[in-house]
Amino acid sequence: MFLSVKRLPHPIPPSDKPDPKAAQALQEGLGGQFGEMRTMMQYFFQNMNFRGDAKQYQDLLRSIATEEMGHVEQVANTINMLLEGATMTSEQPNDLPLSVALDSPNIHHFLVAAQSARPVDAAGNPWSASYVYDSGNLVLNMIYNLMLEATGRLQKCRLYEMSNNKAFRSTVSYLIVRDLTHEKVFAKALETLGVNWGKALPIPRIDTSGMPEVRELESKNLHNQMWTFTNKGETSEIGKIFKGDSPFDDGGKLELIEGFPEGANVPFFPEAPQEFAPGLDSELKKLTHGKK
Amino acid sequence: MFLSVKRLPHPIPPSDKPDPKAAQALQEGLGGQFGEMRTMMQYFFQNMNFRGDAKQYQDLLRSIATEEMGHVEQVANTINMLLEGATMTSEQPNDLPLSVALDSPNIHHFLVAAQSARPVDAAGNPWSASYVYDSGNLVLNMIYNLMLEATGRLQKCRLYEMSNNKAFRSTVSYLIVRDLTHEKVFAKALETLGVNWGKALPIPRIDTSGMPEVRELESKNLHNQMWTFTNKGETSEIGKIFKGDSPFDDGGKLELIEGFPEGANVPFFPEAPQEFAPGLDSELKKLTHGKK
Amino acid sequence: MFLSVKRLPHPIPPSDKPDPKAAQALQEGLGGQFGEMRTMMQYFFQNMNFRGDAKQYQDLLRSIATEEMGHVEQVANTINMLLEGATMTSEQPNDLPLSVALDSPNIHHFLVAAQSARPVDAAGNPWSASYVYDSGNLVLNMIYNLMLEATGRLQKCRLYEMSNNKAFRSTVSYLIVRDLTHEKVFAKALETLGVNWGKALPIPRIDTSGMPEVRELESKNLHNQMWTFTNKGETSEIGKIFKGDSPFDDGGKLELIEGFPEGANVPFFPEAPQEFAPGLDSELKKLTHGKK
Amino acid sequence: MFLSVKRLPHPIPPSDKPDPKAAQALQEGLGGQFGEMRTMMQYFFQNMNFRGDAKQYQDLLRSIATEEMGHVEQVANTINMLLEGATMTSEQPNDLPLSVALDSPNIHHFLVAAQSARPVDAAGNPWSASYVYDSGNLVLNMIYNLMLEATGRLQKCRLYEMSNNKAFRSTVSYLIVRDLTHEKVFAKALETLGVNWGKALPIPRIDTSGMPEVRELESKNLHNQMWTFTNKGETSEIGKIFKGDSPFDDGGKLELIEGFPEGANVPFFPEAPQEFAPGLDSELKKLTHGKK
Amino acid sequence: MFLSVKRLPHPIPPSDKPDPKAAQALQEGLGGQFGEMRTMMQYFFQNMNFRGDAKQYQDLLRSIATEEMGHVEQVANTINMLLEGATMTSEQPNDLPLSVALDSPNIHHFLVAAQSARPVDAAGNPWSASYVYDSGNLVLNMIYNLMLEATGRLQKCRLYEMSNNKAFRSTVSYLIVRDLTHEKVFAKALETLGVNWGKALPIPRIDTSGMPEVRELESKNLHNQMWTFTNKGETSEIGKIFKGDSPFDDGGKLELIEGFPEGANVPFFPEAPQEFAPGLDSELKKLTHGKK
Amino acid sequence: MFLSVKRLPHPIPPSDKPDPKAAQALQEGLGGQFGEMRTMMQYFFQNMNFRGDAKQYQDLLRSIATEEMGHVEQVANTINMLLEGATMTSEQPNDLPLSVALDSPNIHHFLVAAQSARPVDAAGNPWSASYVYDSGNLVLNMIYNLMLEATGRLQKCRLYEMSNNKAFRSTVSYLIVRDLTHEKVFAKALETLGVNWGKALPIPRIDTSGMPEVRELESKNLHNQMWTFTNKGETSEIGKIFKGDSPFDDGGKLELIEGFPEGANVPFFPEAPQEFAPGLDSELKKLTHGKK
Repeated sequence: MFLSVKRLPHPIPPSDKPDPKAAQALQEGLGGQFGEMRTMMQYFFQNMNFRGDAKQYQDLLRSIATEEMGHVEQVANTINMLLEGATMTSEQPNDLPLSVALDSPNIHHFLVAAQSARPVDAAGNPWSASYVYDSGNLVLNMIYNLMLEATGRLQKCRLYEMSNNKAFRSTVSYLIVRDLTHEKVFAKALETLGVNWGKALPIPRIDTSGMPEVRELESKNLHNQMWTFTNKGETSEIGKIFKGDSPFDDGGKLELIEGFPEGANVPFFPEAPQEFAPGLDSELKKLTHGKK
Repeated sequence: MFLSVKRLPHPIPPSDKPDPKAAQALQEGLGGQFGEMRTMMQYFFQNMNFRGDAKQYQDLLRSIATEEMGHVEQVANTINMLLEGATMTSEQPNDLPLSVALDSPNIHHFLVAAQSARPVDAAGNPWSASYVYDSGNLVLNMIYNLMLEATGRLQKCRLYEMSNNKAFRSTVSYLIVRDLTHEKVFAKALETLGVNWGKALPIPRIDTSGMPEVRELESKNLHNQMWTFTNKGETSEIGKIFKGDSPFDDGGKLELIEGFPEGANVPFFPEAPQEFAPGLDSELKKLTHGKK
Repeated sequence: MFLSVKRLPHPIPPSDKPDPKAAQALQEGLGGQFGEMRTMMQYFFQNMNFRGDAKQYQDLLRSIATEEMGHVEQVANTINMLLEGATMTSEQPNDLPLSVALDSPNIHHFLVAAQSARPVDAAGNPWSASYVYDSGNLVLNMIYNLMLEATGRLQKCRLYEMSNNKAFRSTVSYLIVRDLTHEKVFAKALETLGVNWGKALPIPRIDTSGMPEVRELESKNLHNQMWTFTNKGETSEIGKIFKGDSPFDDGGKLELIEGFPEGANVPFFPEAPQEFAPGLDSELKKLTHGKK
Repeated sequence: MFLSVKRLPHPIPPSDKPDPKAAQALQEGLGGQFGEMRTMMQYFFQNMNFRGDAKQYQDLLRSIATEEMGHVEQVANTINMLLEGATMTSEQPNDLPLSVALDSPNIHHFLVAAQSARPVDAAGNPWSASYVYDSGNLVLNMIYNLMLEATGRLQKCRLYEMSNNKAFRSTVSYLIVRDLTHEKVFAKALETLGVNWGKALPIPRIDTSGMPEVRELESKNLHNQMWTFTNKGETSEIGKIFKGDSPFDDGGKLELIEGFPEGANVPFFPEAPQEFAPGLDSELKKLTHGKK
Repeated sequence: MFLSVKRLPHPIPPSDKPDPKAAQALQEGLGGQFGEMRTMMQYFFQNMNFRGDAKQYQDLLRSIATEEMGHVEQVANTINMLLEGATMTSEQPNDLPLSVALDSPNIHHFLVAAQSARPVDAAGNPWSASYVYDSGNLVLNMIYNLMLEATGRLQKCRLYEMSNNKAFRSTVSYLIVRDLTHEKVFAKALETLGVNWGKALPIPRIDTSGMPEVRELESKNLHNQMWTFTNKGETSEIGKIFKGDSPFDDGGKLELIEGFPEGANVPFFPEAPQEFAPGLDSELKKLTHGKK
Repeated sequence: MFLSVKRLPHPIPPSDKPDPKAAQALQEGLGGQFGEMRTMMQYFFQNMNFRGDAKQYQDLLRSIATEEMGHVEQVANTINMLLEGATMTSEQPNDLPLSVALDSPNIHHFLVAAQSARPVDAAGNPWSASYVYDSGNLVLNMIYNLMLEATGRLQKCRLYEMSNNKAFRSTVSYLIVRDLTHEKVFAKALETLGVNWGKALPIPRIDTSGMPEVRELESKNLHNQMWTFTNKGETSEIGKIFKGDSPFDDGGKLELIEGFPEGANVPFFPEAPQEFAPGLDSELKKLTHGKK
């Protein structure tokens, strides 16, 4: 089972402007083949189907799977923030409150959803569970997961260079850092199984000094910290693996924290009558007691 | 964000026998169009994309979304329990340890996964995010969700009549009761918006006295109870909706409980060397310290 | 069986201008998850698979299924009208008669089809029969169908606000009104099963006075009229359900008409040699006797 | 627009026995890549998107599209007939009324549908509109359609040899003959464009004397007859093409008939309470007035 | 088995400018339903599954299948050429080296791939093996293949008219000519089975004098030449079919050549550090010895 | 470009018996997510999209891509061999020559194809190009490819234990050995980039002494040999990587061979008139000169 915490992992600043193109690009991080829905589901399945008594690996998968659930929220809320304000309220019969939709890369943001996130990738393809990999073989799963996090980080680095919208950059930078941590988790797990990575990792192998938002998060050691994401009183054996030196040649010291990060408020999204969302007229509003 | 609790919602008794056919049937409840992956994701998206200040509905969606995460675990573990023992360890060159796979309805249980659950439906189709519905319109979402839970319950009632394997029946019965509760949640939400359901609900409209496992759970009032699935100290406004009398003519009194149910232990699944899962030989085992 | 009537349900005025973006938006109404191909197929399957002797519901499904076949034609022809004139005939080697395709949201309109409609949604995804819902349970099917029509109407209201192209608006407005009628059909069917809708419906719950094209059709009572769409001499029991007062609080009086609406001419689309459509050279034309 | 005629093209005798395997095989003729849903939709789109004044080809497409709608009904009803009786009504808690589902090739017949047809092929894949072909080029469309009918006939000949269940054979034989007629329509259309087929057609090129059910239908000249499937009073130019000698070396004389074939009654399918279909309890039945 | 020859079939001139729109259009020729991946796979499967001793048809399929492998390379390399230069190297923190991606029709060219080709069509749909047709019936397969080549040529003629970018036009023109040759191969095969095509073919039936790049290739008789694409010393019976006069009324003389065309160099694509491709830093480069 | 060699990589002994279940299991090796169509296409795309001058990696990808083309043939032909004899020729009207199809796990083997291989996986899902991975990042691609080969080998080891049919085992064993070689290629490539694998590889980490068919091939050093699969006279830089000691602790000495293996004859598959394949009647046969 899981419990809800009504906080996002990381704050989302307001978008510089309504930005449907950045929103659509960021969909790759939500519903893409290497996005957060996929990492969440993949680790969840590997955790549930785990065989044998090497519990530290099973726990490790569970902690990351749980963190990824929060990443799904982080990305979806950022997409919503980027879309906010893109349409207008109709005042007169000749207004075209949703005309922006015809010039947006994914019209479904406005036509199927009410100016909000969709479980699709940046090219509009729906997420598919055929992405989920679970071979049952421990070494193989760890290699796959390492590759998955490295690909996620690679794509987020590419996203970083597509837009400097503040809302977009903030979340993308956060994920670049967290994907690096997860890459370390799986690289470390493979170290416990005898692999020495030399200088092959991390991927991409870059100097992040050109990415100030990333640098700032690294200055807080976020790229070396894992939370257990366990309910109070529960234990996790992930610490048998995630400890000591970083598996990369970056001099990092790994740090395990019980519980979850402090996080940030979940943004409030106002009514969008031009989208008929939530679409309550005055009589229905009286019933909901939402406004009195 | 979310937190992990290493408990299942409901205990899973051992399977009467290795039962790949029942396992494949139950896949519908996991990766089917009306299965637990879908309810979880649909409510999750509706929660994240919610617009306006009628927070009681947004909170309601979050509590159920969180409960469904545990249902995904419940079903996946039950599938694993049903598959357990279906194959044997090879002793000699002429043995065929996995020959059962050729007579099973989904060979992927043994060939792609290591005798374990897959994110597919009972006909083998991978789960697709094109199933996820979120119109942004509150009344419409509530009607869809009511229909979704009713369809889920209908399919589980049909599953109930396909097999009397104890592990299968236990989880199917639990879900019949929980889907009924969720049907009540959405019916009640629509009552707050003015609808009177008469005798049209629940669906299916049946006397459960022919289903002793279901009856037993109803005798504990499980069909009228909701948990908030919130972390300690968090509040939820779901109680503004889920209170008072059942929206159906069953005389139920709705009961909201803070937190989560006590639940049951997560089963342990042993190594399956014939599946190369986890596939650690003695040297790798030494490294994992799993066995010393 | 079915018979063809070479008339469209509603006239299509010429497009204000060649308008590939409006054409692509309107694809949602044709091949989208809540478009006309889907309603047509869903009611068709529910009609064919109907069980039991409550024939009024089976007949109701058949009448609407048949009407939807005409709606498929209405939308496809409107898309063709919107695309008409978008390309030009090549005169010289340096001309680029189809260059508009590179700036259009769905290049397949020009590359795969010959400047004409495709069985896809507004994001380019092919229609899938996995959309078709038929549970076999009468109450459940009616709830689903109500939701389906309400979602269709919601999306068409959003489309209305995306473009004021006259060809586009005419068909979109017609469908807003017809979807409302169909919403009434299913709401009424559920009334006969005991539900009282209060003020929860219709969806979206809006004042259409800001939509003059819709208003005009409502002034002809089109939002309260159903045809049987039966061949001369055939009877339909739909009238047992579709009669009396509107199920919504709009004061409407339901009206059932035998047969089908008068409709309008099917538009003629001229040859597009730049698309090689139909691609008959002078010798082949002599053979077809199309021109003499 | 279209009108409904509540008749099937061809009578369906009762199934020799409940036969889920034959039912699943026949799904290929419904939702397969070369089944009736596809032919119906392909000709429908080619008809709607037709360019130019060679109306005889456009009308030809419309007549066959309309006939295919009835074929969809024919096949779906036959599948339902084959499934009828496969499950039983539960009498006692230990009964397993739907256990047959676990041994059936498509469990969705019983779990998702209520013992009835699904829009999928014989391997369980949902029908996809990506099958629909419309190039806009007249010669090319005619060649594709010829190939489509020939493939349909080939698959139905293979189906014929898979089962001798009477309900199955009756519909399969009917379609073998109708597909042959449609093959002639498109071969003839290509003859008007200058092609001479020699002995290459029909496909498969077989002596049907080993198929008595087919032979009987041929003895009524059904393989040389086309109906216009037009509403009374409408004209169709298909007769400019479908006339004179068969395009194959079979000595046939083509015959065009205005209107539609006499056909047969649509079968009645009784309630299946074990499937909760239609799922009306005694109180709801009173409301529907279905039983008094 | 197959052997690699590191040559492209046809030279690719540099692109006039970085041209992501032309690149995306050309994806239809790679991963589209009628593109080169499909022809390659379809003929490959028909070759492998061939039944009977009519070896000339089996060999014919193999030669064309092998040629299509080279066409896949031709198109993918042309897409890469069109994308080359579209992004820039980042110099400073405020640069947006990949911002072009947000204005490109398929963001995946830059986000998933490293500014390079993808196995998708021009609308972004992944190639699917459900496109591959192999009925096992010889006449039917030949008709299908003829239609496939004609559709491929039709689409390439449409592409020709969308852009005059030199890199784009060069490859598109080459394929227009080769598809014509392949259309002749299958038309000829059907001639050997008794069909006479009259003036119905080729499709599209156009005068290519308005297409100077095509004309030039035809002046070298490329539209009448087939290579065997066999390894030195191997024989092929394709010459039993591909010989004598063209099956169309174009006066062509068919010419079979053993081996493969001379072809052109494969282009070199430089590193794109902004895409992290190949992403080797100076230390890794030392290891690869790529630079010393 | 590529050249055809009409030889299979490895001989296929006759099947012990017609074996549709083994045939369907083996489909995973052809059209599965980790089957030969995927490895072939993935390496082909990585080769075409390669950036930079580290040619030894680009050549390595090309050699393996080319080998995989032959593996596609190997698996497809083995499936055909397993299906051979499964149906019978009809002699009399009451015969059911294809009735075996109704009891086979994939009826499409007999209904869509003519008793032959299909581009689908063992659960019937069509192969999809969404499987193809090419990030453009060299290290990442190499890690992915290593994982891909290891998963392929894992699945083939599982297949080995499902059936002891000789035709099946022969090809499966061959692929177990070749996948091991390819695993070594990519492990070695990563060694050149600094990784030390310790005892983590190969996967699965098993003693193959219980697999006599595998052992026999290993005794010929097939698990340490790579061919260049280049045309005579072409060079390949793969030898810069594939040389020296095996990257695993198995004591192997890597051996590079120019050209291709000797291989075996391609099997001949006779006509199957019950499948209408190739479906030539005596008159058409005269035309093909296949029989005189």
